[in-house]
Amino acid sequence: MINKNTLKSIDLADNKLVILNQTKLPHEEEYIKTDDFNRIAMAIERLEVRGAPAIGIAAAYAVALGFKGKTSKDYELFTKIYERLYVTRPTAVNLFWALNEMRNKYDSINDGDIFNELLKKAKIIHQDDIKKCEAIGKNGQELFKKKSAVLTHCNTGALATGGSGTALSIIVKAFKNNLIEIVYVDETRPLFQGSRLTAFELEKAEIPFKIITDSTAAFLMKNGKIDVVITGADRIARNGDAANKIGTYNLAVNCNYHNVPFYIAAPSSTFDKNCENGNAIKIEERSSKEIIELNSIKITKENYEVFSPSFDITPAGLITGIVTEEKIYKPPFYFG
Amino acid sequence: MINKNTLKSIDLADNKLVILNQTKLPHEEEYIKTDDFNRIAMAIERLEVRGAPAIGIAAAYAVALGFKGKTSKDYELFTKIYERLYVTRPTAVNLFWALNEMRNKYDSINDGDIFNELLKKAKIIHQDDIKKCEAIGKNGQELFKKKSAVLTHCNTGALATGGSGTALSIIVKAFKNNLIEIVYVDETRPLFQGSRLTAFELEKAEIPFKIITDSTAAFLMKNGKIDVVITGADRIARNGDAANKIGTYNLAVNCNYHNVPFYIAAPSSTFDKNCENGNAIKIEERSSKEIIELNSIKITKENYEVFSPSFDITPAGLITGIVTEEKIYKPPFYFG
Repeated sequence: MINKNTLKSIDLADNKLVILNQTKLPHEEEYIKTDDFNRIAMAIERLEVRGAPAIGIAAAYAVALGFKGKTSKDYELFTKIYERLYVTRPTAVNLFWALNEMRNKYDSINDGDIFNELLKKAKIIHQDDIKKCEAIGKNGQELFKKKSAVLTHCNTGALATGGSGTALSIIVKAFKNNLIEIVYVDETRPLFQGSRLTAFELEKAEIPFKIITDSTAAFLMKNGKIDVVITGADRIARNGDAANKIGTYNLAVNCNYHNVPFYIAAPSSTFDKNCENGNAIKIEERSSKEIIELNSIKITKENYEVFSPSFDITPAGLITGIVTEEKIYKPPFYFG
Repeated sequence: MINKNTLKSIDLADNKLVILNQTKLPHEEEYIKTDDFNRIAMAIERLEVRGAPAIGIAAAYAVALGFKGKTSKDYELFTKIYERLYVTRPTAVNLFWALNEMRNKYDSINDGDIFNELLKKAKIIHQDDIKKCEAIGKNGQELFKKKSAVLTHCNTGALATGGSGTALSIIVKAFKNNLIEIVYVDETRPLFQGSRLTAFELEKAEIPFKIITDSTAAFLMKNGKIDVVITGADRIARNGDAANKIGTYNLAVNCNYHNVPFYIAAPSSTFDKNCENGNAIKIEERSSKEIIELNSIKITKENYEVFSPSFDITPAGLITGIVTEEKIYKPPFYFG
């Protein structure tokens, strides 16, 4: 059994990466144990491991494990691994950030114990994320002025990161501080990361929650039932525009209309200084199958056309604050 | 095969009601043929027949069919049928309107051919709805100033009414008038009336459409992809506040923010003159199963708590206009 102290999306054991297969949660706890960088790339593509920080860490380990047994540098191999990982998912910048960290490390290594050097770096990236999650959780406590009803979208907990999470780290810590009355969990269509993963994490943490359909959030806000909304982010542009799971922008518009504070929580690796604003962020489009089917059960006809962006961009102007491991940034944002 | 000329949610054949079982669409065309008022009440409860106008018509037929074979009045029987139908669903006022029409008819009948008299009245209610749908479709044409991208929620077509629909009647007619470029169809969680039923009707009418998750509507509006939103309504209060499928209010807030016109289309039987404003409208809460499961496949754990209102209230101030069989009402509304 997973318990709340050991819930880990990724872990290293016997020099293999152990991935908790999130597509099977909350029903089954299936672990994928592999040292094959290709298999790790597939796990990212299939969302067996997901969440912007967790993807970055998995990719870092994949680069290291690709050099298992190697004692000398091999630029062709490095490029092959790097490029394979690079194309797995387009939106979360943590992936590219982690790959570039690994490239910098690779470039700085002299021939020798290349595998262990890369593995050491991947472990540092992982450990740093654990610390960042803790710091985000701590910094986010000042969002709560009283015992609050909080709404969140998608999954931003231990399953999405290397540590205790981003938005969910704040919520779990706030619950311990007696600052949470209830968590409303957007189910998060199409892949139900809310009703499957966030609900699972809240259950483990024994925090009261209710699952809602994504469009019920507006209903709750209208009735004064939501004190604060906190989500994660997959990429934040220099001006503060933030890409996150589809439906986040919808929430931000509703927060604006209903005067509910809207916060984003993310580690600094989510900032993309090469990105001037949200228009420069590439939005992944997912397969129509995710809308048409559920576990091979057809919801509707497979020939029907679908438009399914996986992310949307929340403009900086709708964001009350961005909680990072350093501090809470308030507008006007500039991440130069 | 159903074709676009014969798509009927309810029909009368051999003095039995023939209900197209909408829970099986678009995969199977299963018909329920019954003269048992109890079975018709169950069909309403199970959403085998759904859509505010269609529910009203089905209930009217149920009252008449409950008197099949009777030649004299039977107040006890009438009350039993009336009360059984009355508790099937709480929000759509067309149900209560139709039941009251049938009660007025019952009260006005002298002993004699009670069944045929009631059946005649039910048929009039049905025929009137067909005419109203046509008139709504016609009146709604002035919403389009150019070939437009329209977004709709839930299902408001032939499947939801006795005739050609409300919002969807407008859209189908506008397509024939070369005023529709594309229809974006909210899938409409939890019961997928958009991706199952509206998509099915648009396919039959050969109108181009794309299915989206409900929270993708905001993304499209932000990108200037939606010219107008049209939905139906289940009950409209005297001041214009309108109850409709959960998610409608969310759309109206987004329309307001993005400056997209938001219209409601409904027959005059949807007005509830006993209802001063939206606060007086009873909102049905549905079973948590609809959020947790899909066709007995578990999306998440069945013990998880859910909040699932089936409807929400869009305040009059967010409604650009209400298209009825009579005319398009513009704010300030007063339906006295």
